[in-house]
Amino acid sequence: MKFFVLYAHPDHTSLSASLHRDSVSILRELGHEVTVSDLYAMKWKATADYEDLGELDEHDNFTDDSGLAMEKGQLAADIVEEQRKISEADAVLVQFPLWWFSMPAIMKGWFDRVFSNGFAYGTTRSWPRYGNGKLQGKKAMVMLTMGAGTPAVSERGVSGDLNDILFPLQRGTLHYAGMDPVPPFVVPSAYRMDEERYSQLKQQLRQRLETWEPTAPIGYRCQNGGDYDEQLRLKPGLEPTGVHSGYKLHIAS
Amino acid sequence: MKFFVLYAHPDHTSLSASLHRDSVSILRELGHEVTVSDLYAMKWKATADYEDLGELDEHDNFTDDSGLAMEKGQLAADIVEEQRKISEADAVLVQFPLWWFSMPAIMKGWFDRVFSNGFAYGTTRSWPRYGNGKLQGKKAMVMLTMGAGTPAVSERGVSGDLNDILFPLQRGTLHYAGMDPVPPFVVPSAYRMDEERYSQLKQQLRQRLETWEPTAPIGYRCQNGGDYDEQLRLKPGLEPTGVHSGYKLHIAS
Repeated sequence: MKFFVLYAHPDHTSLSASLHRDSVSILRELGHEVTVSDLYAMKWKATADYEDLGELDEHDNFTDDSGLAMEKGQLAADIVEEQRKISEADAVLVQFPLWWFSMPAIMKGWFDRVFSNGFAYGTTRSWPRYGNGKLQGKKAMVMLTMGAGTPAVSERGVSGDLNDILFPLQRGTLHYAGMDPVPPFVVPSAYRMDEERYSQLKQQLRQRLETWEPTAPIGYRCQNGGDYDEQLRLKPGLEPTGVHSGYKLHIAS
Repeated sequence: MKFFVLYAHPDHTSLSASLHRDSVSILRELGHEVTVSDLYAMKWKATADYEDLGELDEHDNFTDDSGLAMEKGQLAADIVEEQRKISEADAVLVQFPLWWFSMPAIMKGWFDRVFSNGFAYGTTRSWPRYGNGKLQGKKAMVMLTMGAGTPAVSERGVSGDLNDILFPLQRGTLHYAGMDPVPPFVVPSAYRMDEERYSQLKQQLRQRLETWEPTAPIGYRCQNGGDYDEQLRLKPGLEPTGVHSGYKLHIAS
């Protein structure tokens, strides 16, 4: 299989960097082809702006203008190259340290710029969102490190449930564009790391990558699967018993 | 009062730009002092990296190194300037278009860089998180535009509940650092805008700004208020009836 590994961390001696190198080695040992975007090493431009869109005769809003630039084939070369990498991949790893309960800006800017109008979404209502679209059929896994411990980031934890925290990325970005996220690979209490723990972690990572194919996706509901009404609200009766909000509503069981 | 307005949009003719200019005018009409950081106009550096930290003799992890740079007074000048602006403010507006259910990268990078270790958080367990800290006592309001309509971004909506979507920012960032977020000012279906709708919107915005002082914060629970156990999980019995997860658990009623 072809894996695309999207990775961001400012320090090449960090825990994230070790996990990144090990994930690439393990994938290659398993016989996969691996393409990497190491955003800090690439000095990736984080900010989406009009420089990305080339010369445009007309000027509407930024989203429509971005779609026009895509249509005319004049998106910035670094964007086009990343679109090619993810398009050619069968599987995607998205690896980062959790900063302010989200991705580092350099990675957010990868999605802002690469997931452009006409590539990962369309502004027309008929564009097939959530589970369909051009990136359909690719599994994706978020791999993250965080300073917080598991209890603080849990259903009753002070920082909220990680499944909710990752909803904008896993559901609102990856699945929106058609991909199938599998459960994330999470390293809590990242400050408390020693050789023994790291060696266990690497073993767990190897297992996740070895069992990539049989691993079931999270299983978010598709927008076009008949579960949502015309106003895009979950139809009555489809919610799991006792669930009224949150990510669980949007998982087909 | 002193307002600090943090704002990001790539197009100065956009709806967001109009709302931004109008919010600043209204605040000044109401007699407030207003400081603005217009991140695109400032060409704000989005990516947090070692260039922000100056020369360091020791090298640990990025978070600790960032704390050390703060301690030694050698953080990059643009970071120090923004820390000054928000420190001097009594109230903060955070205004952006919702991109991939989050902030544009340039604004995420403002928080990654400005909310540094030793300023908006500390790596010691005794640092007073969630409701306390250096930014305590400042109200903050998120102002956002989004393409989606209200039903799609609601409790049962395909894109999830906006209160959950904004949890990483409102709770995990603003409140983490001690600020008190008030309910956000949200403009849905931003593509369907005409003069009449805009004029209503501006009226609503004026009302929100006129009633800034009496407006009650969202009311997130403080970490140090006795609601969480030693592992930082909400103590049994404190949840509203029938609520087992999501942002509502963390609001003190």
